[in-house]
Amino acid sequence: MESKAQVLYDFAAEPGNNELSVREGETITITNQNIGGGWIEARNSRGEVGLVPEDYIEINQAQPLTSGGNAAPLDLSFFDSHVPTPASTAQVDVAQPESPVTPVTPVTPGFTSTSPDETSNGNDPWAVFDNNASGGFSNNWAAQPEGTETGKTSNNNAWQSGGHGHPQAYQGPDIYPYPCLIDLSGAEDDEWDEEWDDMKSSGGYAESEAGEGGAMNRGGAHGSSMKIALNKFPGFSKSGPELYLLSKQQTKGNKLSVYSGEVGPVWAYPDYQLDCVVADPKKGSKMYGLKSYIEYQVIPTTTNKPVNHRYKHFDWLYERLLDKFGSAIPIPCLPDKQVTGRFEEEFIKMRMERLQGWMSRMCRHPVVSSSEVFQLFLSYKDEKDWKTGKRKAEKDETVGVMIFSTIEPEGLPDMDLIEVEQKCEQFSRFTKAMDDGVKDLLTVGNEHWKRCTGPLPKEYQRIGKAFQNLSSVFTTSGYEGEGTLTDAMTAAGKTYEEIAQMVAEQPKKDLHFLMETNNEYKGLLGCFPDTIGVHKAAIEKVKEADKLVTAGKITASDKTTMGKRASTMSYALQAEMNHFHNNRIYDYNRVMQQYLEQQVKFYEMIAEKLRQAHSQFTTM
Amino acid sequence: MESKAQVLYDFAAEPGNNELSVREGETITITNQNIGGGWIEARNSRGEVGLVPEDYIEINQAQPLTSGGNAAPLDLSFFDSHVPTPASTAQVDVAQPESPVTPVTPVTPGFTSTSPDETSNGNDPWAVFDNNASGGFSNNWAAQPEGTETGKTSNNNAWQSGGHGHPQAYQGPDIYPYPCLIDLSGAEDDEWDEEWDDMKSSGGYAESEAGEGGAMNRGGAHGSSMKIALNKFPGFSKSGPELYLLSKQQTKGNKLSVYSGEVGPVWAYPDYQLDCVVADPKKGSKMYGLKSYIEYQVIPTTTNKPVNHRYKHFDWLYERLLDKFGSAIPIPCLPDKQVTGRFEEEFIKMRMERLQGWMSRMCRHPVVSSSEVFQLFLSYKDEKDWKTGKRKAEKDETVGVMIFSTIEPEGLPDMDLIEVEQKCEQFSRFTKAMDDGVKDLLTVGNEHWKRCTGPLPKEYQRIGKAFQNLSSVFTTSGYEGEGTLTDAMTAAGKTYEEIAQMVAEQPKKDLHFLMETNNEYKGLLGCFPDTIGVHKAAIEKVKEADKLVTAGKITASDKTTMGKRASTMSYALQAEMNHFHNNRIYDYNRVMQQYLEQQVKFYEMIAEKLRQAHSQFTTM
Repeated sequence: MESKAQVLYDFAAEPGNNELSVREGETITITNQNIGGGWIEARNSRGEVGLVPEDYIEINQAQPLTSGGNAAPLDLSFFDSHVPTPASTAQVDVAQPESPVTPVTPVTPGFTSTSPDETSNGNDPWAVFDNNASGGFSNNWAAQPEGTETGKTSNNNAWQSGGHGHPQAYQGPDIYPYPCLIDLSGAEDDEWDEEWDDMKSSGGYAESEAGEGGAMNRGGAHGSSMKIALNKFPGFSKSGPELYLLSKQQTKGNKLSVYSGEVGPVWAYPDYQLDCVVADPKKGSKMYGLKSYIEYQVIPTTTNKPVNHRYKHFDWLYERLLDKFGSAIPIPCLPDKQVTGRFEEEFIKMRMERLQGWMSRMCRHPVVSSSEVFQLFLSYKDEKDWKTGKRKAEKDETVGVMIFSTIEPEGLPDMDLIEVEQKCEQFSRFTKAMDDGVKDLLTVGNEHWKRCTGPLPKEYQRIGKAFQNLSSVFTTSGYEGEGTLTDAMTAAGKTYEEIAQMVAEQPKKDLHFLMETNNEYKGLLGCFPDTIGVHKAAIEKVKEADKLVTAGKITASDKTTMGKRASTMSYALQAEMNHFHNNRIYDYNRVMQQYLEQQVKFYEMIAEKLRQAHSQFTTM
Repeated sequence: MESKAQVLYDFAAEPGNNELSVREGETITITNQNIGGGWIEARNSRGEVGLVPEDYIEINQAQPLTSGGNAAPLDLSFFDSHVPTPASTAQVDVAQPESPVTPVTPVTPGFTSTSPDETSNGNDPWAVFDNNASGGFSNNWAAQPEGTETGKTSNNNAWQSGGHGHPQAYQGPDIYPYPCLIDLSGAEDDEWDEEWDDMKSSGGYAESEAGEGGAMNRGGAHGSSMKIALNKFPGFSKSGPELYLLSKQQTKGNKLSVYSGEVGPVWAYPDYQLDCVVADPKKGSKMYGLKSYIEYQVIPTTTNKPVNHRYKHFDWLYERLLDKFGSAIPIPCLPDKQVTGRFEEEFIKMRMERLQGWMSRMCRHPVVSSSEVFQLFLSYKDEKDWKTGKRKAEKDETVGVMIFSTIEPEGLPDMDLIEVEQKCEQFSRFTKAMDDGVKDLLTVGNEHWKRCTGPLPKEYQRIGKAFQNLSSVFTTSGYEGEGTLTDAMTAAGKTYEEIAQMVAEQPKKDLHFLMETNNEYKGLLGCFPDTIGVHKAAIEKVKEADKLVTAGKITASDKTTMGKRASTMSYALQAEMNHFHNNRIYDYNRVMQQYLEQQVKFYEMIAEKLRQAHSQFTTM
């Protein structure tokens, strides 16, 4: 079982995390290759044993550490080849960032590799609509601009290498500098344990585990496209929109109704608004204490009965929701992964807060929240219930575009293709414009955060010190009747030091929530290019229908079906957009109120402090 | 009369000021050499006539443009030669700043030149006390550190070349960036007119006119030492402290009493506190409109009858006060000269404000305000009265250290030399420490000013724009019920733009006064090294008395006289320090109150604006 490995890159162990520091060129002995999560256990020449990231080493007897893949796409090759399915973008993890080192990620069979040349727009998920206005669905995501340098980049979506020289670490360059949330390591935090290992063959997840080791994109930013790029969208990989447009199958499971509401087509909303609380993070450990993790309590408002979930369970849920609903509903990414300092209080608090935000958003969605997999996650009865439900969810076949087969517009007339296309274009324009607006606000907010936590309080502190210094000098005058002035000046100086402190702490009280909400929206908006892309691709298909009928590839009845289904897809999209708008109006009202309220308090408090300082000076 | 001249440096004429642009190497014809104030009138090859700064040109038939000088010092050479008199520091205008060009300042006979090598402490007026603790009085002022570069320097007292490449332009590097008060020209603004030309022989003034052309040291900063260096202290130049210590003469004129007050020795304060208003600046012109100037009304609270004075009259007064009282009383410099933009409203307002500050400070001083020359300035009856008084003041012989001969400690016992020295050291330490404290506050305030008028409002503006942008995007959603949110977000955005404006304008409302007061004190404190230096030099002289008696140079009675006079000097210094402390406590109480009051208003106004913005958002 023991085999030797060469260390490819230096790795510095994180203290207290059972890791082993290794040096490039060192030979180590693998003592346990089945740790999972991108780690192996190894022993060095000094006999020290610890965990090492598996892509930092090259095992002498090559053994593929992970395998997986999806079924090959159906043969629907009579459609234009210029409309690739999203699956063809998998394995971009082979195209590496600017890191000087080359990773040892195994190439999984069943996926074609996208070369950067095909994706001239870099990884801007919106580029497809800008450059290909007639529709189409190009491999624009996660493509890697060559020669990107670590550090500042002008492209918000550019890759950056993280710390430790890990080849796959990603850090959004426009992260606002919240303490403690910097990706310092490329290693995976929520590795698989035994229970999950046997699931690896069920989808692309195991593959993505290896491929995404340490990927970090914060607050769901750029999330969806990344995830898809890294093959976390097996539903997509099995199908283009044609699968649904021409499917003969009857849908199994619940129907998803779209009604005509006041604002247009709307989802069927439940009477009771589901919500949940994510709370009480607890540290657990496994592998005889070798690795530890955090478990959160999730308490649905329906049952009020807490269930325990680790981050990886949330990630599993995310994968299932993305599989199932991603073509119709933007499923925002989870908050990001991080290894270093992941047990630090601040980080745990922040992750919990973001998981809470993500869960609440999912709870608020009538389609997502009523789904079987979501209900399972929120209220499984016991381990057995959970395991059974999990296996069932992973076998769900109504995924990818097939979700549209469950959608039923109630009392809504079929839309013609022109109208369908107009709606789609409108949503595309709006979400792109909002994406720009949100990113702009995030950039400005980030600058403001930096100023408020950096130079500004320093300046107030210096003002405070200058007053106090002068006051100290005054006390040495030996002049009588100096006391009142020096006391007052010292107090004024201290007041400015207090203001410095307030200024530095204020962003956590207001800007933080503004940033978090906009980060959430940035993540959400990052999913729209994919979702809208599916619709645009479908519209293109329907446009080709006449040609296909003439060529005898499909029947006239097929063509009619395709039109009807495009109409159904459009209703779904409209319902989703209306849901989005409704939430957006609520969220922005709430966050602006919260922000301004805190700002008012902040300035009032400063005024009050200064008023007190003022009162100590005397007029003569 | 007409002669040719070579242009040495490029000079760009200020529009509307009758100036003539000239180029280096150009030959011009002098049409009027008697303009004064550092200007000549010239005609270029295209026949254009206008004014050119005289030290930008070299006149082919060399004619000294200015001359002057003081009587040689009395022969008191039996004193140690290591105690030079301040006069020996004159003509440092020969040692030029870092400017690449060399000026053509005539060397006036009667003055020795100080080489930079003798003044290792650069121009820090405090260096003498740091490096020469045993006393002594070295030529430390205005010495020119070699190789200083234009732009940022770490030495607050370093010279900097001004705009236009003028060799003598000086700009304090720690000026806070008040608009419109940047020295853009090296030319003198308040040139002499005919009335004043015949006064040139009466002192070092004409010399300093030429030597100081365009020198600019703002807000009185570094003022005194500069002025002395440039030989504006003829009282000093006529005497070391020995002149007084051994003088046999009876004082003419009023006695200046020092009493024992609650806080120690104090000046005799008048029952009525004099003050005046400087107001109503009016533009006048002379030389058939060739040159124009500003005349201010000065209205003393005693007579309430306005008198008119130009800046140069204030400057004349300053010179007289410095001559007369400078050894005993720090006489702060006038606000600085400036040519470019000197008729701009903002500049005139600022100069008036600073002249007001200077005059009020002089009015508040019991010795200065009751002096004949000051009373003349405030309340001359007519032109004749003014001219007569002026000539009389210029002939006053009780100047320099001889002022001490008018001082009479009333009911105060003679102090022994140890006590005298201790007091002197104490004042030296205090004023140096306060000078550091004030400069520190000015540096911090300057930084704060820059931030408040630069990046900070820009950031608030960007926040405002970002909110408004997002609001604009929202209006394109086509979703019903969007209006309230978009209106509220637009209003919030506008509020932040208003805040940006407020932030940018606030320093003028509060920081300005804090800076002005501290600038005034910086100027005042800059005079102490000279004033205290006179005392230290006197103490050294008295210490040498025994030796001199032994050597038969002075009598035992002379020695006793010297001790008594040192005691008198000390009482004068103590009275002055107590006056200083009293004023300081008043000034800092007042300015801190004013600053904090405005700051409170500022933050309250922001809070109020944000409260209004907040109220527009709705909770759902």
